[in-house]
Amino acid sequence: MEDVLLQQFEDGVLTITFNRPEARNAWNYALEDALRAAFLAADVDPQVKVVVLTGAGRSFCPGPDPKAIAVGQSHRQVAVPEDDFAQRYSYMLALRKPLIAAINGAAAGVGLCITLYCDLRFIAENANITTAFSRRGLVAEHGSAWMLPRLIGWMNAADLLLSARVINGREAEALGLARCLPGTDFLAAVQRYAADMAAYCSPRSLHVIKQQLRQAWSQSLAQATALSTRETAVSLASPDLAEGVAAFIEKRQPQFQPLK
Amino acid sequence: MEDVLLQQFEDGVLTITFNRPEARNAWNYALEDALRAAFLAADVDPQVKVVVLTGAGRSFCPGPDPKAIAVGQSHRQVAVPEDDFAQRYSYMLALRKPLIAAINGAAAGVGLCITLYCDLRFIAENANITTAFSRRGLVAEHGSAWMLPRLIGWMNAADLLLSARVINGREAEALGLARCLPGTDFLAAVQRYAADMAAYCSPRSLHVIKQQLRQAWSQSLAQATALSTRETAVSLASPDLAEGVAAFIEKRQPQFQPLK
Amino acid sequence: MEDVLLQQFEDGVLTITFNRPEARNAWNYALEDALRAAFLAADVDPQVKVVVLTGAGRSFCPGPDPKAIAVGQSHRQVAVPEDDFAQRYSYMLALRKPLIAAINGAAAGVGLCITLYCDLRFIAENANITTAFSRRGLVAEHGSAWMLPRLIGWMNAADLLLSARVINGREAEALGLARCLPGTDFLAAVQRYAADMAAYCSPRSLHVIKQQLRQAWSQSLAQATALSTRETAVSLASPDLAEGVAAFIEKRQPQFQPLK
Repeated sequence: MEDVLLQQFEDGVLTITFNRPEARNAWNYALEDALRAAFLAADVDPQVKVVVLTGAGRSFCPGPDPKAIAVGQSHRQVAVPEDDFAQRYSYMLALRKPLIAAINGAAAGVGLCITLYCDLRFIAENANITTAFSRRGLVAEHGSAWMLPRLIGWMNAADLLLSARVINGREAEALGLARCLPGTDFLAAVQRYAADMAAYCSPRSLHVIKQQLRQAWSQSLAQATALSTRETAVSLASPDLAEGVAAFIEKRQPQFQPLK
Repeated sequence: MEDVLLQQFEDGVLTITFNRPEARNAWNYALEDALRAAFLAADVDPQVKVVVLTGAGRSFCPGPDPKAIAVGQSHRQVAVPEDDFAQRYSYMLALRKPLIAAINGAAAGVGLCITLYCDLRFIAENANITTAFSRRGLVAEHGSAWMLPRLIGWMNAADLLLSARVINGREAEALGLARCLPGTDFLAAVQRYAADMAAYCSPRSLHVIKQQLRQAWSQSLAQATALSTRETAVSLASPDLAEGVAAFIEKRQPQFQPLK
Repeated sequence: MEDVLLQQFEDGVLTITFNRPEARNAWNYALEDALRAAFLAADVDPQVKVVVLTGAGRSFCPGPDPKAIAVGQSHRQVAVPEDDFAQRYSYMLALRKPLIAAINGAAAGVGLCITLYCDLRFIAENANITTAFSRRGLVAEHGSAWMLPRLIGWMNAADLLLSARVINGREAEALGLARCLPGTDFLAAVQRYAADMAAYCSPRSLHVIKQQLRQAWSQSLAQATALSTRETAVSLASPDLAEGVAAFIEKRQPQFQPLK
């Protein structure tokens, strides 16, 4: 796996790095498979609290190499399951741990789509991103016509998908697509955000809240309220609540239970 | 009711104030019950056109006292009805009159959740707010995992619910959560917005538009259009239309019918 | 048709202009009918790639003349079909080509509503817009209580519909309603955006992406992913893909197929 991905662990945060800088981290099937394996392994590792995804070198992931597209090596066929969160990339939203995209440089096509399935996106000020599809004769791939409107509203989604214009980090933040940070020490700043979450937030709470957010897409308000009422009752019986309140009163870092 | 809430009426605007400044307006069951009673009374009072909710002193409502959480006095069990807008706090969206949160200071946990069920939120520049849940070992309570994504998009909702980071008024505005105003004369500025609405907007129109917005959550576009067509036909027969158009042409304040 | 609309074609972009400047482009039935006819004609004209809608003079469209409202000449009854995108104005979202509103000046009531059914909205810095309804004793017309929350979030929609306050271009951009541009050379700037799309984006891709966005409103994520997988497979067999990739590699303008 080390040929296409790097993994680094610190302070409860696993950083997974696309590691094909010689190819600007262009997407290919090996990268896709390695990424899924790395995510699934992180999800069952009790030490890992939060996962950060970034790219080596100056690019994040510009999608498949155009030459791979030209020779039909870019779009393999996969089955489309019925479960909303078991799709080719949407499985990322079903992971138990927060997934944070650190878009350090260019992201396009599928390279941008996978960031849509991360819980949070940070972007470097000078990183350029684009959906790219309409300028290649393609369509909105990988459910992006569904995800983007729910992330940034219907007009901004239409703007990015129809025009396929290139926007930088500042514009991405203005559209609500990602939080923008200076390019200098960009990854370290994202890792600090992730480490703060790993240190202060209950892994159990993060897991349940991710479920709640995911289910809220297709629930009624009454169903969502019923779920939060049920999960609150479970929380009240969890040792994490006593520890969370005690740590808050004592102004110290909490010691929450790791996810089994 | 005066022990936990203050009420002040002026220019068609009822201002309801959390009045436990000695406890930073910490949430408790008495406050919850008094608030519901005050809202329901305002809704049937023909003089009240718009309701503003704020906090006495420097805090809005930081949620329950941490000591109340520690001893199990913070989360009473309530029934979860099937009606989306008859939930523990969502009934606020079913009131006939606009409800405006004036977040003058700290809001956290349930204190933030109740503002989500107001139609509009203003926030003072230096007010600090947080969901708080994940840092106490709790989950997204009171349907907040459903409301927040619909108010500020899925990523911003995930950011606030997963990290439970503290944001100030400026950041809340940037996320689309509330409109930010300077701390000086904050409440007066919100009351001016409310008084303008009370003076110039038809109470009947406000009531119907609140219904339309509420129903649009679960309607198709065709259903919503059919509803607006039906309600427009009713409006055309209402004395408020003649008065609204006449006042506009004559550049004067309209005299609309109060809600029965 | 030339009495109420002007049409100008250049660089693949058809600009349709409300042409009743003596009446500030006030809405009437002739304008509504002419606009529909012009849109439908543009949609089947293979030369037209993108459509821009704007107003002659200093106003975009302030809704019907108040005097027409006063004498009952503003709100004709129309049937409400069951198809979400066959409504009185929502048919605009079912057109195959991108529709861009260039809000050069005042837009209110139905004049604002029709821009909601354009794919994109640009607004001049000093243009003033308002929903207007609640101040005339009317309700949220033409499905605006459904569209606005999906475009700018529920609170911003409630703000604009309940208060009916007047906002300018800068505020419209801050709410996510439209992209704001300086008033000087405003229309030319929008036409450049449209001409770039006409020159560089595949008409077939634009058509399919508009379908995907439209259908995503009522799909599950799994359904939307299945659709994008099916449409991607069709794209891979289209001559536009080979041309799009070749043009990208060769850094030249692509020559895509016109829509039949």
